[in-house]
Amino acid sequence: MRIAIDAMGGDNAPGEIIDGVLEARKILDKEDELILIGVKETIETYLSSARKKAKGITIIDAPEVVGMDDSPVVAIRTKRKSSIAVMAKMASHGEADAVISAGNTGACVAACQLRMRNLEGVNRPGIAVTLPTFGGPVTMCDVGANVSCKPINLYQYALMSSVYFRKVYGVESPRVALMGIGGEAAKGNELVKKTRMLLDSDPNINFIGNIEGRDIFDGICDVAICEGFVGNVVLKLTEGLVDGLFQAIKHELVSESLRLAMKFKPVMMRIYQKYDYHEYGGAVLLGINGTSVICHGSSKSRTIKNAILASKKFYTQKVNDDIVKYLSASSVRPVSD
Amino acid sequence: MRIAIDAMGGDNAPGEIIDGVLEARKILDKEDELILIGVKETIETYLSSARKKAKGITIIDAPEVVGMDDSPVVAIRTKRKSSIAVMAKMASHGEADAVISAGNTGACVAACQLRMRNLEGVNRPGIAVTLPTFGGPVTMCDVGANVSCKPINLYQYALMSSVYFRKVYGVESPRVALMGIGGEAAKGNELVKKTRMLLDSDPNINFIGNIEGRDIFDGICDVAICEGFVGNVVLKLTEGLVDGLFQAIKHELVSESLRLAMKFKPVMMRIYQKYDYHEYGGAVLLGINGTSVICHGSSKSRTIKNAILASKKFYTQKVNDDIVKYLSASSVRPVSD
Repeated sequence: MRIAIDAMGGDNAPGEIIDGVLEARKILDKEDELILIGVKETIETYLSSARKKAKGITIIDAPEVVGMDDSPVVAIRTKRKSSIAVMAKMASHGEADAVISAGNTGACVAACQLRMRNLEGVNRPGIAVTLPTFGGPVTMCDVGANVSCKPINLYQYALMSSVYFRKVYGVESPRVALMGIGGEAAKGNELVKKTRMLLDSDPNINFIGNIEGRDIFDGICDVAICEGFVGNVVLKLTEGLVDGLFQAIKHELVSESLRLAMKFKPVMMRIYQKYDYHEYGGAVLLGINGTSVICHGSSKSRTIKNAILASKKFYTQKVNDDIVKYLSASSVRPVSD
Repeated sequence: MRIAIDAMGGDNAPGEIIDGVLEARKILDKEDELILIGVKETIETYLSSARKKAKGITIIDAPEVVGMDDSPVVAIRTKRKSSIAVMAKMASHGEADAVISAGNTGACVAACQLRMRNLEGVNRPGIAVTLPTFGGPVTMCDVGANVSCKPINLYQYALMSSVYFRKVYGVESPRVALMGIGGEAAKGNELVKKTRMLLDSDPNINFIGNIEGRDIFDGICDVAICEGFVGNVVLKLTEGLVDGLFQAIKHELVSESLRLAMKFKPVMMRIYQKYDYHEYGGAVLLGINGTSVICHGSSKSRTIKNAILASKKFYTQKVNDDIVKYLSASSVRPVSD
């Protein structure tokens, strides 16, 4: 398969991105093609200064760059020669089977929607991120593609995430939960109440009911559904809280005794590794007619390598075929937006 | 002042509640009255079995009990002799200056709204919880009173929380932030965008802009505003994640060496104490014509004691007087609901 990677996206671009692509090159099959898209000169300067060679990797020049703070819609409209725009265009022309970026998330979503289009029957795509939790991986959707969801959107996220979790993590009947603020059906806002009815109506979704914020990391579900605003807050809060807590522990340990702090370090590293979201490589954009992986802005080479492997799994497992199949079999019909 | 406490609310009622009231009794001034409301027989049975005497505490019989899972509106309509209903009624008749409960949050909010009424100029009350963060206390409002907010509600939460933070935590010009999903004004949903305009228009609110989930615990704001659904998810997620992370650390430490785990224990306890939300006693219901403190269902005697002290501070600092003053001076007028 042909995988296109945005060399310019993220806080550590282009170095860590290029390194990630080089790492993936060693693992992937010979038939797989890796395509680096970005400012050619910048890419080549990095390669020569790091004394590395992009053997088996195609470089495509995209002279414009979308900034992390650029307005997504404006960026996609005006920077047609940016790596994100070029990448999505290649996918739409059948020149790439998967696209990967650690750049401006909004611009990525907009470019994929505009160029690659939605899958048949999908109203709005959603970003599905897999979180390492104390009870195993949990896929949460949406975490920011769609900040004003309708019940149909959440229903489709549940169906798509369920298919994705089954195909990629091998769980036959993933337990799907809806983010709410109480176990009873009565609690929650109108969106949650209406979505529950749709989820209850579909025998192909193993809907286990509402969960509260504290349940996400508890192992009671495989898939957690929420609107993009809530999901984004959850995702960012989790990052900030975990970082802050480890900082606080470190601070207390050091003030107690440096020796104790040193002894605690390997334990902390093990926990970090176990619950490291970089392992999952990035989030997938579900509902797009193609394979699109969106990586965290802070992605390191390992994240990019894992994102490339994740895109291959998504593509070869034909996740989209099953999404279309289940959506067309569903009695819940798409709405006209 | 006269403080009424729901003896039947919460997972540890009535024992921990009564103990908390007894602890507070020792600290409060002689003129302060403490009123325990609940099933008189249950309260007296506990007191005699624990060989404790409710000296200086009035017991008021409320033979009905609202369950933690009861529908709030139904509970308040049908259980008029429950501790929550009686408590709110006493406040409305001027027989109590403050009400405190660790029971069914929805029922508490409903009872306070129904009996005590909103403060002049307030459209909807909001629950303001103070979180201990790595950068000091942060008051977050709303965490569950109002799951479908309008911009006017969030604006009023910002104004009320700002007054509350100034009066109770002594910060002259609290930094108020709006929960969003990106620093730029363009990001966020319609609610966030419209609320920004209202917040920008009020010179009495030190509005510092949008924050993301990761910023809550970072010390960049004193007050964080969000709709009840989001706030509730944040609150519960934080609890679950912190608990889970400490469990994971404990597990790793014990599997490494029991001695190391024992050495780490006092450090963990210190962190727990530093960031212990029980210290703050509970959340205040802002916008009610009176003083209402809502405690966590898992409240211990210490939480209840602290909630009683918090209610006294709220009352004696005349937080509500300032809220009414600033609301009436604001150019943002209340809307007809």
